[in-house]
Amino acid sequence: MQLHGYFRSSAAYRVRIVANLKGIDLDQLAVNLVKGEQRSDTYLARNPQGLVPTLVTDDGHQLTQSLAICEYLEECYPTPAILPSDAVGRARVRALAQLIACEMHPLNNLRVLKHLTGEMGLSDDARLAWYRHWVASGFDSLEVMLNDGYSGKFCHGDTPTLADACLVPQVFNAQRFDCDLSDYPRIQAITERARALQAFASAAPGEQADAV
Amino acid sequence: MQLHGYFRSSAAYRVRIVANLKGIDLDQLAVNLVKGEQRSDTYLARNPQGLVPTLVTDDGHQLTQSLAICEYLEECYPTPAILPSDAVGRARVRALAQLIACEMHPLNNLRVLKHLTGEMGLSDDARLAWYRHWVASGFDSLEVMLNDGYSGKFCHGDTPTLADACLVPQVFNAQRFDCDLSDYPRIQAITERARALQAFASAAPGEQADAV
Repeated sequence: MQLHGYFRSSAAYRVRIVANLKGIDLDQLAVNLVKGEQRSDTYLARNPQGLVPTLVTDDGHQLTQSLAICEYLEECYPTPAILPSDAVGRARVRALAQLIACEMHPLNNLRVLKHLTGEMGLSDDARLAWYRHWVASGFDSLEVMLNDGYSGKFCHGDTPTLADACLVPQVFNAQRFDCDLSDYPRIQAITERARALQAFASAAPGEQADAV
Repeated sequence: MQLHGYFRSSAAYRVRIVANLKGIDLDQLAVNLVKGEQRSDTYLARNPQGLVPTLVTDDGHQLTQSLAICEYLEECYPTPAILPSDAVGRARVRALAQLIACEMHPLNNLRVLKHLTGEMGLSDDARLAWYRHWVASGFDSLEVMLNDGYSGKFCHGDTPTLADACLVPQVFNAQRFDCDLSDYPRIQAITERARALQAFASAAPGEQADAV
């Protein structure tokens, strides 16, 4: 399978983590978002949104949206599982993942930040304040939700799930923008434990072939 | 089961559609977002994000994030299915749903619009331009993705899925903001077909007890 991604993309980073956890060998192809390669006709034919990642299956299906791709990998390669075995647990893990993937990341990804300083004419300072506002808003809630009795060494229990695969890239991003994470001891502890695992470490942006 | 929602919330609207499609009778409780009831201590104890919806299961589990709730309903009440039976089809439906739920709606929901004119100090005109920009960006892509051979009467095949449960509320919202939808004949045709179904019609904001 081919993964079209970008080293610094949170969404591609999630898929790399999940593939690593499951021992799936992906053929990785770089789409340089800073150079605008995601707007090329070739890439738009794969992914009409012009976003990364895109997963191309061995039989040529082109799958988009990182959480949908992760669920596809979970269905095709069920072991080790990245979702719990009970329906309520799966709902909790998906909700934690979506808190990040729906409520934090879409507000702070590259196209939105560019729009703020481009079409909207805002300053770099205003853009940074925007970024930090949505990180704080999301992590304030997540820190509380990680204290509901279901978290263990990781976001849900003691093994990594889809929620951790979303959390670690979001923390990486927050640290790039120098967000203060001192109010989030649970988020920090889980992130450190996850980063110590090879599946997470080798998925990190700095470890990718297209890293600059 | 109890659904804590708000008549005009897209995310609650999605869950109402899915519950109706499956014939699940939900006890609906209104959280007035305009009055700020989502920030009350009582509600934050249910949903630390202060967002709607929250589903409270019969055994007291409190589930958040609309797509996670819809997947939970699919798992507990599998018939009629809102996801296809094949893994690639499920990936496609989830991707269409996430295009809306991750890339459109989070940029344009009430808390973000308030932040733009509040903390960011933007004008109402700038807020409207922002709104329409992300609707156009999302629907431009979605219209293309609905022409890949897998759509039929609905977003995926000829029966409603999770993708349609996300599309109809997003179109409702776009129409509230007078977005021009004339470039999206597939989106419009699918929306009209879905709205004609009782499950979608009775989930519409205007039909809810808390509608004003």
